[in-house]
Amino acid sequence: MGYRLYYWPGIQGRGEPIRLAFEDAGVAYVDVARLPASQGGGVAAIQRILSGRDGGLRPFAPPVLVSGNRTIAQTALILHWLAPRIGLAPASERSRLTAHQLQLTLTDLWSEVHDTHHPIAVSLYYEDQADEARRCAKHLREERLPKYLGWLEAAIRGPYLFGRSASYVDLSLFQTVAGLTYAMPHAMAALMRRLPSLRALHDRVAARPRIAAYLASPRRIPFNEGGIFRHYDELDAPRPRRGR
Amino acid sequence: MGYRLYYWPGIQGRGEPIRLAFEDAGVAYVDVARLPASQGGGVAAIQRILSGRDGGLRPFAPPVLVSGNRTIAQTALILHWLAPRIGLAPASERSRLTAHQLQLTLTDLWSEVHDTHHPIAVSLYYEDQADEARRCAKHLREERLPKYLGWLEAAIRGPYLFGRSASYVDLSLFQTVAGLTYAMPHAMAALMRRLPSLRALHDRVAARPRIAAYLASPRRIPFNEGGIFRHYDELDAPRPRRGR
Repeated sequence: MGYRLYYWPGIQGRGEPIRLAFEDAGVAYVDVARLPASQGGGVAAIQRILSGRDGGLRPFAPPVLVSGNRTIAQTALILHWLAPRIGLAPASERSRLTAHQLQLTLTDLWSEVHDTHHPIAVSLYYEDQADEARRCAKHLREERLPKYLGWLEAAIRGPYLFGRSASYVDLSLFQTVAGLTYAMPHAMAALMRRLPSLRALHDRVAARPRIAAYLASPRRIPFNEGGIFRHYDELDAPRPRRGR
Repeated sequence: MGYRLYYWPGIQGRGEPIRLAFEDAGVAYVDVARLPASQGGGVAAIQRILSGRDGGLRPFAPPVLVSGNRTIAQTALILHWLAPRIGLAPASERSRLTAHQLQLTLTDLWSEVHDTHHPIAVSLYYEDQADEARRCAKHLREERLPKYLGWLEAAIRGPYLFGRSASYVDLSLFQTVAGLTYAMPHAMAALMRRLPSLRALHDRVAARPRIAAYLASPRRIPFNEGGIFRHYDELDAPRPRRGR
C-alpha cells in the first residue's frame, strides 16, 4: 500500500516524530517533498496536498500522511492511527489512550517552545521579535520546562514509558529532549541533572539500532533555525561559571 | 456509571467544549469543581485530580474526565473518547478520524487566541504584556483568523460539518465563533460577512433546544477575562466608521 509523508523538506519540525516512527519500525515511507521536483517532490508537493485531493477534508497544515485512500493531518493523530499498524503502539486500548494523551501534551510543549522564538507572529522574522523572545524564553526555562519535564519524568515506568517495549511516544520524548538540548544547552544541562529517567530514556532511544542508523544518515536533517527547536545564545540560560 | 468533569469553576476555557457536549446530549455529568467545597468541589478538587488517583498517568492540566476507572485529559482526546458514547460522533471510523483532526485544529486555533493576550508568559498579568499583545492581536486578526476561519468555512458540507447530524465538533465550532465574537466583535463582524456557512452553523447550534436552554441557564459561565476568549478593546479591530 505504501505510506507517503508530506512535510517541509528542510526541517525536522512537526514531521520528525513521524519520520522517527517509520525509521524505528523499519517500515518504508516516501518523504515526498524531499524527492526532486522532477519526481513530484519539493515544496510544490506540499502545496498540492494542502489544496485537497479526494474530496475529503483539506488538511490545514503539514505534516500530512497519505496511505491508500486516507489523508490524515495533525502529528499526534497521524501517530495514533499509524503506530498500531507499524508495531509502535502499546498493547491495550487503555494504554493507547494514555499514549495519545502524552503525545498531545508533548504537542502543547512543542507549541510553547516554538512560541518562545516567535512570541508575536509566525509571519515575522525572529529578529523582529527578539526582545520579546528573550522575555518569553526566561519563563520557558524557569517555569514551563521544569513543569513539563518533571511531569514526563514521573510518567516513565519501565525502561520505556509503557514498560519493556518502545512506543512512538518514547521516540517523540527522545526528540523533545534532543531538541531542547540543541536549543538551550545550558538550561537543559542544569535541568536534566534532576531527571534521571528522562535522561536514560533519551539515551536508550538514541541507541536503538535503527534510530542510531537514522541519526547518522543524511535522512536526518540537522537541527536548524527553521524548525521548532532553534538555538539562539540569548534565549538559553547563561553559561555556568567554572567551579559551580 | 456517571461522568465527572474536573475543570476550573470560574471560566469556560478548555472545559467548555466538553460541557457543551454533555448539555447537547442531555447526559448527566458532575462539574466537580463547581460543587461547594463541603461536597468535594472547589479548586481543591482539581488539585486532587492533578495529583493522581489510581496509579495511572497523572493529568498534566485540566480538563480531566473521570468515568468509572478511566481518567482522561486533553479536551480533544476526551471528546474523541466520549462522543461515541453519548451520540455525538459521526458514524464511520473515517469520519471520526476527520472529526478528531478538525478538533485538533480548533485546539491549535484556541491556543493561538490564548497566546494573543499572553504572548510572553501565562504566569504574567495581561497588563504586563499588553504592548506585545497589541502587536500579536493584529497578526491574529489579519492573518491567522482569516486563514483558520476560511478553512473551517470550506469544511462545512451539510447543515452540519458531517451532514445532517450534529457532532461534538459542531458544538466546538459554535463555541469558537461565539468566543471570537465576544473577544473581537469588530474584527469578527467584518470576517463573518464572508463566511455564510460558518455563520449559519453557529446559529443552528445556538438554536438546538438543549444548547439554547444551557446558554440561558446559570450553568453557562459568561465569557470573562479569565478564559481563552477575552475582550480587550485595544486588541480588537478599530470600530468601523459610519457609512462604510
